[in-house]
Amino acid sequence: MITTDICIIGAGPVGLFAVFEAGLLKMRCHLIDALPQVGGQLSEIYPQKPIYDIPGYPEVKAQELVDNLMDQIKPFNPTFSLGERVDHIAKQTDGSYILTTSDKTKVHAQVIVIAGGLGCFEPRKPVLENLESFEGKGITYMVKNPETFRDKKVILAGGGDSALDWAIFLSNIAERVTLVHRNETFRGAPDSAAKVFDLANNGKIDLILSANLKSLGGNGKLNSVTLENKAKEEIIIDADYLIPLFGLSPKLGPIADWGLSIDKNAIEVDTRDYSTGVDRIYAIGDINTYEGKLKLILCGFHEAAIMMHSAFKHVYPDQKLSFKYTTVNGVNAF
Amino acid sequence: MITTDICIIGAGPVGLFAVFEAGLLKMRCHLIDALPQVGGQLSEIYPQKPIYDIPGYPEVKAQELVDNLMDQIKPFNPTFSLGERVDHIAKQTDGSYILTTSDKTKVHAQVIVIAGGLGCFEPRKPVLENLESFEGKGITYMVKNPETFRDKKVILAGGGDSALDWAIFLSNIAERVTLVHRNETFRGAPDSAAKVFDLANNGKIDLILSANLKSLGGNGKLNSVTLENKAKEEIIIDADYLIPLFGLSPKLGPIADWGLSIDKNAIEVDTRDYSTGVDRIYAIGDINTYEGKLKLILCGFHEAAIMMHSAFKHVYPDQKLSFKYTTVNGVNAF
Ligand SMILES: Cc1cc2nc3c(=O)[nH]c(=O)nc-3n(C[C@H](O)[C@H](O)[C@H](O)COP(=O)(O)OP(=O)(O)OC[C@H]3O[C@@H](n4cnc5c(N)ncnc54)[C@H](O)[C@@H]3O)c2cc1C
Ligand SMILES: Cc1cc2nc3c(=O)[nH]c(=O)nc-3n(C[C@H](O)[C@H](O)[C@H](O)COP(=O)(O)OP(=O)(O)OC[C@H]3O[C@@H](n4cnc5c(N)ncnc54)[C@H](O)[C@@H]3O)c2cc1C
Repeated sequence: MITTDICIIGAGPVGLFAVFEAGLLKMRCHLIDALPQVGGQLSEIYPQKPIYDIPGYPEVKAQELVDNLMDQIKPFNPTFSLGERVDHIAKQTDGSYILTTSDKTKVHAQVIVIAGGLGCFEPRKPVLENLESFEGKGITYMVKNPETFRDKKVILAGGGDSALDWAIFLSNIAERVTLVHRNETFRGAPDSAAKVFDLANNGKIDLILSANLKSLGGNGKLNSVTLENKAKEEIIIDADYLIPLFGLSPKLGPIADWGLSIDKNAIEVDTRDYSTGVDRIYAIGDINTYEGKLKLILCGFHEAAIMMHSAFKHVYPDQKLSFKYTTVNGVNAF
Repeated sequence: MITTDICIIGAGPVGLFAVFEAGLLKMRCHLIDALPQVGGQLSEIYPQKPIYDIPGYPEVKAQELVDNLMDQIKPFNPTFSLGERVDHIAKQTDGSYILTTSDKTKVHAQVIVIAGGLGCFEPRKPVLENLESFEGKGITYMVKNPETFRDKKVILAGGGDSALDWAIFLSNIAERVTLVHRNETFRGAPDSAAKVFDLANNGKIDLILSANLKSLGGNGKLNSVTLENKAKEEIIIDADYLIPLFGLSPKLGPIADWGLSIDKNAIEVDTRDYSTGVDRIYAIGDINTYEGKLKLILCGFHEAAIMMHSAFKHVYPDQKLSFKYTTVNGVNAF
């Protein structure tokens, strides 16, 4: 059994920063994440993309922000259970909780903070015969490291921003990029769509519109993809990789069963302290909702700070919280 | 007359970041600050101090954060009136406002954002004969650039964190540091007080407790300060500089007269959008208050983001706001 003051479900940017705010108040944290790495959406979906709206950072790559957050919380020695999903929580008679993960790890905590983002998300997959057997053998649903695709023949499928952005980005890296989309127009940003049409006109990428994925070819490893166009003609394209980018379907998962008040896959909270209404359970970051909510990283940071000041009373019921600036007291001084 | 979408009163970190959030929604900003430079408390009170709780920055000097915020908002070309206090606001029949500054500059804006921090703050001054005549000639109330004091004889007066911190910091820079305090114990952080007693025991600074400032000596320029101790004895100390650090007395100033709901020098706001209750006037950062409020820079950033999404309806009454990630759309794209 792992024992801690605060157990944080989700090690995305918001869960990570919450460790810092807890640490300033001398509360220890254990974090659990279903993904094998920290960073949530940033590390999983768009590690190499620049973010422009982190205050004080005119530009910062998503993974760089995650790395900096890890540095920032280091003084407080958080512990982690990665690659494990929190499946159950059980209230103890003294008000504390025991959490159990998919690997049967048990964590005893005074307070639970749900920083679960979109929940345990899964890519939306196309319906194709033998799809599973090619996963990891040419089929991937995310671009983690663009270098994987250097000098390869890559097919991207989809019409949203991810498909557009990666088509643009990989056009400089891959041997050949083919973008397949079932419509004539794109859902993604008009700017990006314009750029994609430009690249296609200049022969830098192949653009195949009004076409669907039909079947996969290859022996053990993907080597071709068959499409079907509007005229029901088949087009066979050589490919080392197929990247279907049909979005993520976020699944709240087990969190939905914990008696919390849920609205559109998000947990309703009281904005005074981001508490959920269930004693000693808070929700911060993308997973919560309230009037005016913006799913922005910087908003999650604020929620983490406010929330930890409220959680203090559960961890130190007999102490008065004294609020101090880090500038005046430093970080190790706490 | 300057015309803008949003007029921001106060160019502290929160007012500055608000420009960014406005810019993403295509709203232009003009900022007015009573101080001659941007950055609010950070640039005025503690430019050289490291801050540890800006998310994603394990450590950042206050002035560096301000510089980065200025870089971040550059794409949106904010305009500034610095060294001017906003004295009056006048509601126009169409709902917009005209603001008038101490220099009679007039700004016409659809929305007012008060990011006035502690208000127009002034240092608390000791009561000493001829004090004013030595100001800027040996007497200063803030350490803007520690280098000013290199190899000088400096007297610091006060018992709070500023006095302790600067005594510690300047002990390595000044020829001689004397710290004068009217009590035997310090109000500041115990850690810092312990360090100051250490430095005094090791002869690195002079510590004079239970003593008051009595009079100033010098002809045109300060050259000595006379103290009086508990036994009513006078002590004369040679000095190039006297820095009384008795805190700032924040003055809400003209803002107090604008019909806003004020509680303990702060403006009460609705946390759904940080509106003040007076049409088209919002308040963000240190100057607002609500249940659970923390006077932290990172909280002001969140308030700025939420607030601008609400202000949009006043600037573009006929448009629907579409929320987009910077990562997907960039900053210049707006
Ligand atoms: C393409 C893209 C671009 C974006 N651009 C921006 C931008 O420019 N600016 C911005 O502010 N935001 C942006 N965002 C949104 C930003 O990524 C999110 O706001 C942010 O990731 C939320 O952080 P979080 O910590 O709340 O959740 P997440 O990052 O989603 O992390 C939540 C974590 O919780 C884990 N989890 C969930 N349930 C469980 C469970 N039961 N057990 C264990 N683990 C669990 C998940 O595995 C996940 O790792 C963008 C998002 C995308 C997809
Ligand atoms: C020593 C010290 C250490 C600190 N350490 C930290 C820390 O570690 N972390 C943290 O998050 N915070 C810290 N803070 C607090 C932090 O500085 C404030 O939260 C922050 O400055 C608030 O920003 P703001 O933009 O709301 O207001 P301010 O920075 O106060 O700026 C407000 C501006 O408005 C102007 N103004 C006011 N009224 C008018 C008017 N009528 N006309 C024109 N201009 C006007 C003022 O001149 C001022 O420049 C610290 C503060 C101090 C003093």
